[in-house]
Amino acid sequence: MSAWLLPDHIADVLPSEARHIEELRRRLLDTACTYGYELVIPPLIEHLDSLLTGTGQALELQTFKLVDQLSGRSLGLRADTTPQVARIDAHLLGRQSITRLCYCGPVLHTMPERPHATREPLQFGAEIYGHAGREADVEVLSLALDCLRAAPLDGLSVDLADARIVRALLAGVMADPAVLAAVHDALAAKDASTLSRLTRDFPAASREGLQALVGLYGDESILVEAEKTLRRTPIVREALSNLKYMASRLTDVRVSFDLADARGYGYYTGVRFTVYAEGAGDAVLRGGRYDGVGAVFGHKLDRERPAVGFSLDVKQLARAATSAPLRAAIRAPWSDAPGLQAAVKALRARGETVVCALPGDAGQIDEFNCDRELIEAGGQWVIQSL
Amino acid sequence: MSAWLLPDHIADVLPSEARHIEELRRRLLDTACTYGYELVIPPLIEHLDSLLTGTGQALELQTFKLVDQLSGRSLGLRADTTPQVARIDAHLLGRQSITRLCYCGPVLHTMPERPHATREPLQFGAEIYGHAGREADVEVLSLALDCLRAAPLDGLSVDLADARIVRALLAGVMADPAVLAAVHDALAAKDASTLSRLTRDFPAASREGLQALVGLYGDESILVEAEKTLRRTPIVREALSNLKYMASRLTDVRVSFDLADARGYGYYTGVRFTVYAEGAGDAVLRGGRYDGVGAVFGHKLDRERPAVGFSLDVKQLARAATSAPLRAAIRAPWSDAPGLQAAVKALRARGETVVCALPGDAGQIDEFNCDRELIEAGGQWVIQSL
Repeated sequence: MSAWLLPDHIADVLPSEARHIEELRRRLLDTACTYGYELVIPPLIEHLDSLLTGTGQALELQTFKLVDQLSGRSLGLRADTTPQVARIDAHLLGRQSITRLCYCGPVLHTMPERPHATREPLQFGAEIYGHAGREADVEVLSLALDCLRAAPLDGLSVDLADARIVRALLAGVMADPAVLAAVHDALAAKDASTLSRLTRDFPAASREGLQALVGLYGDESILVEAEKTLRRTPIVREALSNLKYMASRLTDVRVSFDLADARGYGYYTGVRFTVYAEGAGDAVLRGGRYDGVGAVFGHKLDRERPAVGFSLDVKQLARAATSAPLRAAIRAPWSDAPGLQAAVKALRARGETVVCALPGDAGQIDEFNCDRELIEAGGQWVIQSL
Repeated sequence: MSAWLLPDHIADVLPSEARHIEELRRRLLDTACTYGYELVIPPLIEHLDSLLTGTGQALELQTFKLVDQLSGRSLGLRADTTPQVARIDAHLLGRQSITRLCYCGPVLHTMPERPHATREPLQFGAEIYGHAGREADVEVLSLALDCLRAAPLDGLSVDLADARIVRALLAGVMADPAVLAAVHDALAAKDASTLSRLTRDFPAASREGLQALVGLYGDESILVEAEKTLRRTPIVREALSNLKYMASRLTDVRVSFDLADARGYGYYTGVRFTVYAEGAGDAVLRGGRYDGVGAVFGHKLDRERPAVGFSLDVKQLARAATSAPLRAAIRAPWSDAPGLQAAVKALRARGETVVCALPGDAGQIDEFNCDRELIEAGGQWVIQSL
């Protein structure tokens, strides 16, 4: 086994892709900044119990464990940034008003999430804490779409869902957690026959509602259909009304609905959205409302804050977004000739890339396209096209 | 023990500091880009044997260990990025010509390096591979200084040393590694009496040379002094000549020399530099020549490439550099009023930060200074000072 072989699903990012990722990173953070989202940088490692508080078993399996030599305690390498941002909102900022936060940094997974996924995504995300209304849902989704447009990514489409609908239909149903998990899987897969078998002993209203959900995906017309078909409890009515409102606020994007989609049901508590882009196989962005995610961190009960946000993997985005062109550069000689140092310095101060040919330099560079040369002509240093 | 308490020497970076770090990060990478350094992003985790190949025991103690569930092998969380960049130069790029690389990402240490140091520095660095000459040394140090000036950091001073001088004086000395380590410590501390005791049984030339080194620190005059005092072997003569050359190429910075300084002697193989800034307690940047760092990764002997580079901690730099002012922002109302969405969108497209006051928003924001407001006047959306 060679010393330089990397672990599976772990890779170096080489020059041209690295510069592309860096550019995307800046565009994403700058877009979040124009919306007034404050940047935070939570640490890569934390006490394991803090990282995993209230997040469920899925994240625990994805989290690398370490031992802290200073304290002997167990640490975790973060597999998701959201619980950390919730902690920051709950404790450090401690504001009563709305807090908008964004972040961009690596996370690590013990196992790849999909067959060809990296175990080290570069996670970018934005979140609003302290607002339970649909206005916050709309703002977060608008920001998410503007981030993708800034990438730039074309042909965006949004799938909207609401975790409360399935939850409302399951309210009062006594069933084994494994059965409930299977019900959610069957709903996500639109598997009506399995669903029928699993819900055989459920109360009629639940069973019929869940069966109806399987067909409730498509354009806005399914919201009308849902209003007719589903039992109109206040929660279901509010969820449907919010979905309609959100769609009405979105422009320049194809919107569809999938009322049976209950992925992440242990986490999301309201609207959920998934964004797809032309040419990208998998979803490029996921988000939604997860009220109470920071509750476990609260000193006081009033720190159980509503929250809505999204995240994406910048490395995955870089594969879907148009790559940046090679950066133009100027080749310069290396010498002690008078004026050369000053000429190079002035060009660099203007943001130009000036590559000095060190003695013996063959000058093969991948990332930069040397299309000009700095030469001496009549005692002056001038730029000449190559 | 509360769930949200962070491990010692690990901290969240909160909004205003985080934005400052992000700005510094961009300035550093942009400065490296103007010099033609290509960005790479090595992974946070690697096989332990790969991370620690040829780096010595100090790095091993600083490296957190993990188990890879996919392979059962030991992984390390990188404590330094340079061995990874050397691996990238040796294998992935595989160029015969000069390669200029830069990077910026977190590293993790099991123990803080200094009493108040973070265990999660944000390491930025730049390196030239494939050039053994003093021209590359000068370029790397010029870039280092320009990076610090871009921060901006004032009152820079550079300490120059050369690892070959102490090494040449110790050539042929038969001594225990522990004694040699103590000799290096005594030299760094300018502790003449300890040095005298440790070198009692050394050959006279070595003993006298090492004793002389203790006084050889200060301005350029000590180079003249060294030429007189030290035995003029070809290596010592070349090292002194290079130091003089480097100093002659540096402008707008105070340069001093410390020929006894042999910190990192197991690593550096030529010139070493340390940069200090006014108001920053500790050194803000360290670098030098470490030829052969990537040799262990080479398939062929000809991949033993000369290398010179530097690194710094962006978090430490943020404390030393002038903080960025609060970003000006525009407060906007939230409503479905005609034209509001378009007006907000247009402002954001111009790079303005527009914070929409969601219903119930008290609008307390740390990072942004809302100095203007978007209001409706005569059917138009206009900006008014606050």
